[in-house]
Amino acid sequence: MTFVEKLNGVVQRNRSLMCVGLDTSPELVPPGMGVFEFNRDIIDATADLVCAYKPNLAFYEVQGEKGMEALHRTVRHVPKHIPVIGDAKRGDIGNTSEAYAKALFDELGLDAATINPYLGFDAVEPFLKNREKFAFILCRTSNKGAGDFQSLPCQYEGKTLPLYQVVALKASQWNKQGNVGLVVGATYPEELKIIRQAHPDMVFLIPGVGTQGGDLKLAVEYGIDKNRRGIVINSSRQIIYASRGPDFAKAARAVCQTLRDEINHILEGIKG
Amino acid sequence: MTFVEKLNGVVQRNRSLMCVGLDTSPELVPPGMGVFEFNRDIIDATADLVCAYKPNLAFYEVQGEKGMEALHRTVRHVPKHIPVIGDAKRGDIGNTSEAYAKALFDELGLDAATINPYLGFDAVEPFLKNREKFAFILCRTSNKGAGDFQSLPCQYEGKTLPLYQVVALKASQWNKQGNVGLVVGATYPEELKIIRQAHPDMVFLIPGVGTQGGDLKLAVEYGIDKNRRGIVINSSRQIIYASRGPDFAKAARAVCQTLRDEINHILEGIKG
Repeated sequence: MTFVEKLNGVVQRNRSLMCVGLDTSPELVPPGMGVFEFNRDIIDATADLVCAYKPNLAFYEVQGEKGMEALHRTVRHVPKHIPVIGDAKRGDIGNTSEAYAKALFDELGLDAATINPYLGFDAVEPFLKNREKFAFILCRTSNKGAGDFQSLPCQYEGKTLPLYQVVALKASQWNKQGNVGLVVGATYPEELKIIRQAHPDMVFLIPGVGTQGGDLKLAVEYGIDKNRRGIVINSSRQIIYASRGPDFAKAARAVCQTLRDEINHILEGIKG
Repeated sequence: MTFVEKLNGVVQRNRSLMCVGLDTSPELVPPGMGVFEFNRDIIDATADLVCAYKPNLAFYEVQGEKGMEALHRTVRHVPKHIPVIGDAKRGDIGNTSEAYAKALFDELGLDAATINPYLGFDAVEPFLKNREKFAFILCRTSNKGAGDFQSLPCQYEGKTLPLYQVVALKASQWNKQGNVGLVVGATYPEELKIIRQAHPDMVFLIPGVGTQGGDLKLAVEYGIDKNRRGIVINSSRQIIYASRGPDFAKAARAVCQTLRDEINHILEGIKG
């Protein structure tokens, strides 16, 4: 089964376009609790409400060996019908990217990964070889400094386009097997709109709602494809740290449910 | 002591601008030997010939827990006066890049890391906070696809420049504490020449000699700064896999010595 088939299956089953970002720091979990146990409880409390989970590898790497063990156990704990996206932002020269692709897809068992395009096609290619796996190419990231390079006007095939639009164009050319998507931050709704118009069929991973302040309504309205899906809206801290007490999983469920329902409400308001 | 002080110290002590890339795959080491033991023997055989070591994290991540343990032990085994550059090509939004910076500099104990600029300044900033640590920003990478985006003509401050030159300009602006350098592949000597002319004082990490086919002579001639240093020339596979038999360390030493001496010979031929 491909990533997109798995994603669409759970989108339908859970009526959800919400992804929970498992960016778990040991100092932010309730005292006496391990990172895996925290993630396990979050997953158990939200598995009927999400379309994907997205651990960011940085939060596990910083914990060393213990962190990587917690990440492995977390990935294995996610129910088989829910895809796991590794937010890794990798990208290296060919033979090295191959090692990263193996590390993420085979060793860790992730369904998809985020990939940095700066090194060009041969850095991305190893992530596309297995057509069941999926690569989300960083296009317009959600952070404040995103514009430093991504907004630079570039000359490309006789046109002047901001770099992120050239990245989207190239990524769509790489999407020969339907396993390439884009990362577009909810914090840049106008850019999201432009990218969706240019690429009606690609799947977008949309971070930046919640703590980062992205507009959920615009993310949905501008992001969805003609089948009223094709977006994976991620929230991390707003959900997993909804409560810092022993009721954290219940609180996470409540925020996740509110966001899922809000997205569905927004969808209902959009003429189909 | 800062990275640059440490680097210049060993450049002088070993009369060397050579960096050995420790990109060790378990299937390429002699039968019955572990990755750490292989690296240890390479380090012991070359420590008087190099100015730095550069493990690429992909090759350790792909081995899972065992690989990360081998990487930790490898970093600890490098003599204290020789800097270790983590080739990680990281870069993420602010709070996540902070976690990566901690993972690389504190948890792994690296002296420097390679950083991908696509996300902009706030993705790079956490790597610059500790002025003793050093960030090599990817500028012109050594791979075939480097030009896909890095060569795009961009409009920047009233000029039209290829993206990699804009990256170099921005990186030089970020270099307020002397702890920012650039990655420029030996496979693109003309670009290297241009970047050195524009940035006479920055330290360049130059991969791509050896297996990738970069021209060593041009890398040295075009790369060196006015003090006849400021370059870290990396070779990985050509050195560590010089022999696949039990004499691998001796063979690695021989290739490393030849390259070091060749660089010094090229330096002698350049008018100072």
